[in-house]
Amino acid sequence: MIIPKAIQNLIESFEKLPGVGPKTAQRLTFYLLHVPQGELDKFALSLENLKKETILCSQCYMIGSTNPCSVCADAERDGSTICVVEQPLDVLALEKGNRYKGLYHVLHGKIDPLNNIGPDEIFIEQLMLRLKNGKNIQEIILATNPTMEGEATAMYLSKQIKNLNPEIRITRIGRGLPVGADLEYADDITLQRAMEGRSSY
Amino acid sequence: MIIPKAIQNLIESFEKLPGVGPKTAQRLTFYLLHVPQGELDKFALSLENLKKETILCSQCYMIGSTNPCSVCADAERDGSTICVVEQPLDVLALEKGNRYKGLYHVLHGKIDPLNNIGPDEIFIEQLMLRLKNGKNIQEIILATNPTMEGEATAMYLSKQIKNLNPEIRITRIGRGLPVGADLEYADDITLQRAMEGRSSY
Repeated sequence: MIIPKAIQNLIESFEKLPGVGPKTAQRLTFYLLHVPQGELDKFALSLENLKKETILCSQCYMIGSTNPCSVCADAERDGSTICVVEQPLDVLALEKGNRYKGLYHVLHGKIDPLNNIGPDEIFIEQLMLRLKNGKNIQEIILATNPTMEGEATAMYLSKQIKNLNPEIRITRIGRGLPVGADLEYADDITLQRAMEGRSSY
Repeated sequence: MIIPKAIQNLIESFEKLPGVGPKTAQRLTFYLLHVPQGELDKFALSLENLKKETILCSQCYMIGSTNPCSVCADAERDGSTICVVEQPLDVLALEKGNRYKGLYHVLHGKIDPLNNIGPDEIFIEQLMLRLKNGKNIQEIILATNPTMEGEATAMYLSKQIKNLNPEIRITRIGRGLPVGADLEYADDITLQRAMEGRSSY
């Protein structure tokens, strides 16, 4: 049995995606055989244009269709606060709530020595430059993930920012129990963080 | 925050795939932003050409790059046996073992009254025609899935084939415990089928 080249090619492309194994790649490919050609063309076009029609914002390094991005260009945003996140998707998650009105800075990674990613591999220098040149920046919210690497990145950033300008207020996003969680099933460190991060009521 | 149109389009295309939710679609799209343009173009091209470069075999209704397909065209295959399956992917699964040397017939579905799919919606008539016109067809292996609908389809086919030509041997793929399974955790019906399907040792 020879699998047609056209099918084999698409299976291989799908297999390269994270979390997609050979079986899923096959299933998706054979599913697409039943989809109208117009849909396939639309899918193909959006793949082709993905990188051509997007650009990194030269201020916050978020991925957008314009430079500066729609957040940085928005005059109603509070320029005195910058929230530092690891990935562009984190910005989308925070924006979904529609509560935060400050600006962002996307690091595009985290300090991760085990994978050979040091401070120079991610957009830390660009953040420092932005703080050096920026006027009226009052608070930096460190919103890297509460993982080992995220905490290390936050710690590193905090030291660097203090060195640069001790006037800037540095905060870390709250760590504790997520809404809907059960104390009984929470792990030790989360509980410890929740106790440390308690607020008056 | 405005998500760039190019990103939004690709997220929407991914979301239409089976088993891909909004979060996975976002994750895949943002992953692809880090992939070289050449890879994206290759992916896009294989999507565009998927249906253009494939064709249904007019004999067995398998998807292939030629008509008749590589199995039907292979003179070394045993034309006296036809294995009937629900989907093209089932042919790939059976071919992987490299043991079966007969031909196939792909139904492209199963009789499923709850979803308004009757015998006329799948390639049953084409199978009957093939049996009517074919010479020297000795055995039909009914290899539809051992689900409610697959069993119903097998039963329907078996009656139709008997009506058409009582000489043809009709068999059903073996049902029982899969290799590596544990008797303790097998369900009632599987165990019952395994007992019914026992063979001398």
